[in-house]
Amino acid sequence: MSNKITKVLTNNIKFNNVNITDRFFGYYQNLIINEVIPYQWKVLNDELEDVVKSSAIKNFKIAAKEAKGNFYGFVFQDSDVYKWLEAVAYSLHLKQNKELEKCADEVIELIGRAQQDDGYLHTYFIIERPDMKFKDLWECHELYCAGHFFEAATAYYNATGKVKVIEIAKKLADCIYNNFGYEDGKIKGYDGHEEVELGLMALYSVTKEERYLHLAKFFIDERGQSPHFFEVEWEARGKTSYWSGWKQCESPNASKEFISFIGAEYNQTHKPVRKQDEAVGHAVRVVYMLCGMIDVAKESGDDSLLEACQKLWDNIVNKKMYITGAIGSTHVGEAFTGNYDLPNDSLYGETCASIGLAMAAKRMLNTEINSKYSDIIEKEIYNGIISGIAMDGKSFFYVNPLEVYPKNHTNPVLEQVKIERQKWYPCACCPPNISRFLLNIGDYIYSTNNDTVYIHQYIANNSNFNIGDSYISLEIDCDLLKSQEIRIKLNFSDLSDNKVALRLPSWSKGYLINISDDKAKCRVIDGYIYLDNISQKKIVIDLTLKAELILMKADRRVRYDAGKAAITYGPIVYCAEEIDNGSMLYNLFIKDSKSFKREPFMHKDLELFKVTINGYKEIDDDDSLYHENNVQLENKEIILVPYHYWGNRGLGEMQVWVRVK
Amino acid sequence: MSNKITKVLTNNIKFNNVNITDRFFGYYQNLIINEVIPYQWKVLNDELEDVVKSSAIKNFKIAAKEAKGNFYGFVFQDSDVYKWLEAVAYSLHLKQNKELEKCADEVIELIGRAQQDDGYLHTYFIIERPDMKFKDLWECHELYCAGHFFEAATAYYNATGKVKVIEIAKKLADCIYNNFGYEDGKIKGYDGHEEVELGLMALYSVTKEERYLHLAKFFIDERGQSPHFFEVEWEARGKTSYWSGWKQCESPNASKEFISFIGAEYNQTHKPVRKQDEAVGHAVRVVYMLCGMIDVAKESGDDSLLEACQKLWDNIVNKKMYITGAIGSTHVGEAFTGNYDLPNDSLYGETCASIGLAMAAKRMLNTEINSKYSDIIEKEIYNGIISGIAMDGKSFFYVNPLEVYPKNHTNPVLEQVKIERQKWYPCACCPPNISRFLLNIGDYIYSTNNDTVYIHQYIANNSNFNIGDSYISLEIDCDLLKSQEIRIKLNFSDLSDNKVALRLPSWSKGYLINISDDKAKCRVIDGYIYLDNISQKKIVIDLTLKAELILMKADRRVRYDAGKAAITYGPIVYCAEEIDNGSMLYNLFIKDSKSFKREPFMHKDLELFKVTINGYKEIDDDDSLYHENNVQLENKEIILVPYHYWGNRGLGEMQVWVRVK
Repeated sequence: MSNKITKVLTNNIKFNNVNITDRFFGYYQNLIINEVIPYQWKVLNDELEDVVKSSAIKNFKIAAKEAKGNFYGFVFQDSDVYKWLEAVAYSLHLKQNKELEKCADEVIELIGRAQQDDGYLHTYFIIERPDMKFKDLWECHELYCAGHFFEAATAYYNATGKVKVIEIAKKLADCIYNNFGYEDGKIKGYDGHEEVELGLMALYSVTKEERYLHLAKFFIDERGQSPHFFEVEWEARGKTSYWSGWKQCESPNASKEFISFIGAEYNQTHKPVRKQDEAVGHAVRVVYMLCGMIDVAKESGDDSLLEACQKLWDNIVNKKMYITGAIGSTHVGEAFTGNYDLPNDSLYGETCASIGLAMAAKRMLNTEINSKYSDIIEKEIYNGIISGIAMDGKSFFYVNPLEVYPKNHTNPVLEQVKIERQKWYPCACCPPNISRFLLNIGDYIYSTNNDTVYIHQYIANNSNFNIGDSYISLEIDCDLLKSQEIRIKLNFSDLSDNKVALRLPSWSKGYLINISDDKAKCRVIDGYIYLDNISQKKIVIDLTLKAELILMKADRRVRYDAGKAAITYGPIVYCAEEIDNGSMLYNLFIKDSKSFKREPFMHKDLELFKVTINGYKEIDDDDSLYHENNVQLENKEIILVPYHYWGNRGLGEMQVWVRVK
Repeated sequence: MSNKITKVLTNNIKFNNVNITDRFFGYYQNLIINEVIPYQWKVLNDELEDVVKSSAIKNFKIAAKEAKGNFYGFVFQDSDVYKWLEAVAYSLHLKQNKELEKCADEVIELIGRAQQDDGYLHTYFIIERPDMKFKDLWECHELYCAGHFFEAATAYYNATGKVKVIEIAKKLADCIYNNFGYEDGKIKGYDGHEEVELGLMALYSVTKEERYLHLAKFFIDERGQSPHFFEVEWEARGKTSYWSGWKQCESPNASKEFISFIGAEYNQTHKPVRKQDEAVGHAVRVVYMLCGMIDVAKESGDDSLLEACQKLWDNIVNKKMYITGAIGSTHVGEAFTGNYDLPNDSLYGETCASIGLAMAAKRMLNTEINSKYSDIIEKEIYNGIISGIAMDGKSFFYVNPLEVYPKNHTNPVLEQVKIERQKWYPCACCPPNISRFLLNIGDYIYSTNNDTVYIHQYIANNSNFNIGDSYISLEIDCDLLKSQEIRIKLNFSDLSDNKVALRLPSWSKGYLINISDDKAKCRVIDGYIYLDNISQKKIVIDLTLKAELILMKADRRVRYDAGKAAITYGPIVYCAEEIDNGSMLYNLFIKDSKSFKREPFMHKDLELFKVTINGYKEIDDDDSLYHENNVQLENKEIILVPYHYWGNRGLGEMQVWVRVK
């Protein structure tokens, strides 16, 4: 293992060691536990009349020969069940629920009965085309689904300690291992949609089976090699595609045509992953790939792979990410476009992609302690991810725009941008992804190595875990939206050379720290306040961060944001909504940010904060389409609300980037 | 004939009575005569190696059984020949060319030989599917091509007096008349792409055959009636499409699917034309339809039809037109979108659509003398249309954007926007359309009724024509780009109650008029200065208009132009280019328009004018994607050049709407 990696190596403290007490995230977790998981269960079982048919559970029953019928849905329909199961796992840690656990156990049993003797598991092929297993990896999502199952299985095992789900997962992983690899007779290929790599690494984390690490590394190493695997398998299939869930595949030549149309960049197979230094193609695939790459790089001490990860990471967050954390600038291929191309209205900004970026950030952080990673997690959890779910948990965004004009939403380039959250989606990747992510937020707060506990997120919780040979209990008391005062109580079982590191968020204009232990010393490295020389087993740290209202500008190369600013306060990105400011938000502009008000408001029983700032509205009543400039300015207080909150009060305009004088 | 129409009825003075002497348009006409027509002839004959194959002439030879092979090209390939022929007709009036005339005569003979005994003429169906004639009107462009032939035939006859071309046209028109109409056994339908209506009206103008008027009216009246003709013919065909030139038609259900996908709005068949009050669907089709509607309304004195025309016109120019005269906000269906949806970068703005709008404006003007129509003609001829052709006549725009950023042209929504003019297009509608339009500019200058000559455009020329019983010779001496002094010399054969009306352009901040005839009186109505009480047979009018640099604003509902202005001087819309101002034009803004310089510059031997205006450049060297607002302003002289001129000095950014302080 190289120095480069070992010097920064940490591991996450997993969700099952952390009890969230946070007001804000607690709200969302309760919402998901009480509303979304039961709702989702009904969707999976086709029990809701006004929601698109899922058939996901029925597909498993048919595969297990316990029901009759045809497979229904997208080829990745199974993953909806797995993501539900993963969310259930986290929820059982947060809140015991015997009935739900029994239901999950039964689903696991059903999955086990659907699984084939050789371990194979994918209901479409089991039901419809058993002859075609592993023969159309390009878009058939067999390994993608497996990856989600591995994540779910690991989570369920960690939450409940039950091994049945791990047995099924291992049987499936072994089936994949037996079918893929360098050895003669095995398939030298990979899935069109990355996910199995990070899934295998999750399974590896609990099973410690080296072959799963090797298999994940194999998939990563093979990706983008010549000859192009998807052309090889297409030739081998007799130049046809089998899965007709994609319209493009209906004609025999479609996959070939589609590959050349959309390019190998679409699924990151245009070059070997180590040579990829720009994030291209389908955004979710890129970040899932990145997660797998980081996991493998870290576990195998692979410097060249980690370097590629760093390049991809840097490219995404420095050149291709919206200020809300959204990624993917176009719906065409749900993809990244060029550097600095960040249109605010016609983007994709898929919720799943934001989730994937947070997942990648957590992993990067485990290879290098630097707040540049934990800042992105914070950005995602307060903005880009939670904008995907309504405050009542009953509707969801797939695409997360930064500008919406419902009255002027006629251009086909905006077709994929829904102006309101939708009850469900035929391609239902995002809603269950939000559920599993937000219930797993405990996973994002801490990491440790031999002697240091790193506090990455100021989310109120209490937790207990080992660090080196000592045992630690830790309590964070804060309410970051309300104030930036954070109290951290630590209790070490014994006094070795333990250190504590606290993230200093990029938005903080300074900090004040009070430590009950007079001997403890502070130093700041890479955005973290390190406390060492700790002389007491019990210490209390009072950290006060300094939030201000900040007018953020985008890089001069982002043409869509020229002359505009995005307003932030602490981790929150704000936006203007029509309901507060009237229509034609683009005719407003901010005067200055010197005087502003920040006031609480209630959404049902949740306290949030709005900002009022001085500005102008351009008044021009001339109804002729083009006319001489005769714009009058009117003083106007501009009201801004948190971005994640937009669209919770009915249909209306929304704009993140507001013009500045 | 109703009062409403008759009170304003005028007729154009045709190109063959007008000799253009204008410096600016003379430049373009010479370019087309000397460069484009010969180039186009080579294209039509596949004589250029680096240009997309056309096969258009060969198709006629195959249809005439004088060559072997298959039809090649789009289903409307014939129209490329017809537009070339039409351009040749105008060119022969402007500049005699025996060789070219002989060539055109031979093409006409060839067309005649390709024509079937029953008058049918469309090389695709003659060559490939004679059994399917007039059975797939939805997208097969049979009548569209006929319409272009009628326009060409009328022009060629007007230019040369030769009747052969009119004989072929009449035979074709009669064939259509025999196949379409209300009578039993005839097809009660119309073409998917409007054009035959205006073409028939052109043919009617020289033949005075009432049945052509009736046929045009039939097509217009039937459009959008129930049952939907394209579904009827699809059922009649056995639910298949035959033309495979459109990808959508490859599967048997495609036309049905495509109709429902793209909607009946695409070809303006969603409701009867008299009920259409918003321009929707394919922009070129809308304006060609509008031309036919106006022609029919005027000739048949149909008030309800004219009202529909006025509504469509108003909707286009007041809610859906760019300041350059471009129309069509999206490449999806090459179509209009909603009111005020005018994105500057991802539009369509097809050159053909601007031409069609100018054609419609000329026709509207003949039903109502009002400068609101002639202003649009002026806007198009100085901006939206001529931007379509390079100053050397060797390359063309199909799409005419108002903003281009070559270094950041990565988003698929911009795919159709070419950042440089192209040598030719596989779908080659625009280049020949520019040729025929600009050579026919003489048609747009004057109209008359019994006692008045209307001067619509200040394009230098001399002309001779009848007005009532008198004969008039008229000379306009001006160079509108250079100065706004216009000298008009009129010579009436006798003194009846003749009047002269001169357009007062909307950009003119006042005017000064000097008439050599002291007794003549002036009054202004609807944007025209009317001179009456003329007491001398020879008069000289000196009209001085007052141009200023104007910062034009868009209606407050056009969100893409918020905070920006477009600079105009006289009829010219200006733009900023990277070559003059450096990159990132969106970081420039205009301080004020009080002090500015307007200076001549030479492009080869053509004098044009640029504008220099005070402004600022925002300087922000922070390379982080998002950072605190720390923008510095630098004084900057912003150089603006005429919009039509952009892209003539190499690849670079361009922006029409510039930010204003």
